[in-house]
Amino acid sequence: MRPDTPGEQETVADLGEFGVIGRLTAGRAHPAATLLGPGDDAAVVSAADGRVVASTDVLVEGVHFRFDWSDPEHVGHKAVAVNLADVAAMGAVPTGVLVGIACPPTTRASVLDRITAGMWQEANRAKVGVVGGDMTSAPTVVISVTALGELRGRDPVTRSGARPGDVVAIAGRLGWSAAGLAVLKRGFRSPVNVVAAHRAPEPPYAAGPQAADAGATAMVDVSDGLLADLGHVATASGVSVDVRTDLVEVHQRLLDVASALGGDPRGWVLTGGEDHALAATFPGPQAVPDGWRVVGTVGRPAASGPAVTVDGAPYAGPAGWQHWR
Amino acid sequence: MRPDTPGEQETVADLGEFGVIGRLTAGRAHPAATLLGPGDDAAVVSAADGRVVASTDVLVEGVHFRFDWSDPEHVGHKAVAVNLADVAAMGAVPTGVLVGIACPPTTRASVLDRITAGMWQEANRAKVGVVGGDMTSAPTVVISVTALGELRGRDPVTRSGARPGDVVAIAGRLGWSAAGLAVLKRGFRSPVNVVAAHRAPEPPYAAGPQAADAGATAMVDVSDGLLADLGHVATASGVSVDVRTDLVEVHQRLLDVASALGGDPRGWVLTGGEDHALAATFPGPQAVPDGWRVVGTVGRPAASGPAVTVDGAPYAGPAGWQHWR
Repeated sequence: MRPDTPGEQETVADLGEFGVIGRLTAGRAHPAATLLGPGDDAAVVSAADGRVVASTDVLVEGVHFRFDWSDPEHVGHKAVAVNLADVAAMGAVPTGVLVGIACPPTTRASVLDRITAGMWQEANRAKVGVVGGDMTSAPTVVISVTALGELRGRDPVTRSGARPGDVVAIAGRLGWSAAGLAVLKRGFRSPVNVVAAHRAPEPPYAAGPQAADAGATAMVDVSDGLLADLGHVATASGVSVDVRTDLVEVHQRLLDVASALGGDPRGWVLTGGEDHALAATFPGPQAVPDGWRVVGTVGRPAASGPAVTVDGAPYAGPAGWQHWR
Repeated sequence: MRPDTPGEQETVADLGEFGVIGRLTAGRAHPAATLLGPGDDAAVVSAADGRVVASTDVLVEGVHFRFDWSDPEHVGHKAVAVNLADVAAMGAVPTGVLVGIACPPTTRASVLDRITAGMWQEANRAKVGVVGGDMTSAPTVVISVTALGELRGRDPVTRSGARPGDVVAIAGRLGWSAAGLAVLKRGFRSPVNVVAAHRAPEPPYAAGPQAADAGATAMVDVSDGLLADLGHVATASGVSVDVRTDLVEVHQRLLDVASALGGDPRGWVLTGGEDHALAATFPGPQAVPDGWRVVGTVGRPAASGPAVTVDGAPYAGPAGWQHWR
């Protein structure tokens, strides 16, 4: 674990469970969606139309983040962002997050303060509060976040509604997190905005409900990589998806990183995970709302079944991130 | 980790993340509250009156459970039960649970199957489904559960509404989990029902909404121990609570265990955690519903502030479970 503020030697064991929870929840302002915040057995959150959207993800030190590559603030930010992106990918508006943190008793209290500062920062960007949580001890730092959202009368946009003739479009960045990871793996800390994209992704939350309002037929959070996540849409919808490389932007910054360090910038864009862009299908180009970029089309499934192709052919590179493999 | 079914050697690494998730969610029947179950970016669950109650807890191998003391089914059961009890303690009716499981890649797939079988069993007892989840790798088994519930027009029953003159009442068992732990610590496996109470508590979920309907002024899930959790009510409400030992039942089974192994059966009842009984305050004995047992009274705070006493005096034993201490 990285060094903390000098003089701040207090550990979570010194403070005790309730002391830590008190530090993490005290004095925070909550938006209107928080009907009852932290401090009781459970929180109460708005679910305006009688339905709640909920998603949970677990991040593990050494698997999803490293404290020598990311500050505690980034870790907290990312844990919240990846879950809120899942809620947005249903077409829902975020309403709150619940947080579980397990960490060694020797963890400095200031590290937890910084993790939760990052959580609150990203929660505030999504206009929600950290409404509840749990703290406990574990050999490694493990962070679980559950994000809640409300549909406000919209139908949820699932992965299974894509139809032949639809177009595929993207909101948010692709490839930046993979480029940032490549930089960190080589021991560098810059370009700063590429590294920041890996440490603390900023998913385009508002693009989720926007796509739902525009008639998106399917939507997914790009967490495993564009091709892998479009593969989930293809399978769930029983269609094939073709991505056209002439439509997929590879930002100059990624080209610069690739030329400095080596690496395949188009591969980062097509298969790099953790950017938490949104990918959606729309009934035609005219339905694609502002801020979304068309990158491909939906067709009938291949004879062998649903598939994702690039420029009409199978993609030769690695398919995307899977745990345990 | 304990031995598994012979011949079942497949690990989670062999199956891969999506293979594991498929095994855990396939073919399960969901109740009506599950509007959209596992398999998409997020689940959609009923929140009938426009509010959702949500609570999250993290359980860690070696801290909250041991596979030499509990079967994987018990671990899954307990992880779900402790969270649903929190939802019930607000006066809410459970509507669903989300589950995050982090485990070593070498974990046998059959162990995960058994953990989730226990989760589903207890979820079914509460008439809810496992609506979403996440699987990832970690050095130790860490299970996070988020429980959701709906109030159906009731006001949430918080910890802060107890008033002098109220009575304190209990629904569910107290001391059984602590007695079961004492048995396991001595290397025994019986009495079976005492050990089962530790491995797989069965909180009285329906008693939560029942207490809310009866006008409970405050309510809490007894997870840290009766005196510790009444302490949370006393602090939040600005009152004192007196527990009367002549009203606190010490079951004959606990007396038997204590006389066989040594141990303080009344201490188990007053300070043993993890039974997940519900404790609530009511405006008077006549308001206490069937199945609840009066165990004490609420008074004005002491000169030194809110406090919990036993038979009018400070309790001399240990106060209850705190992590990291």
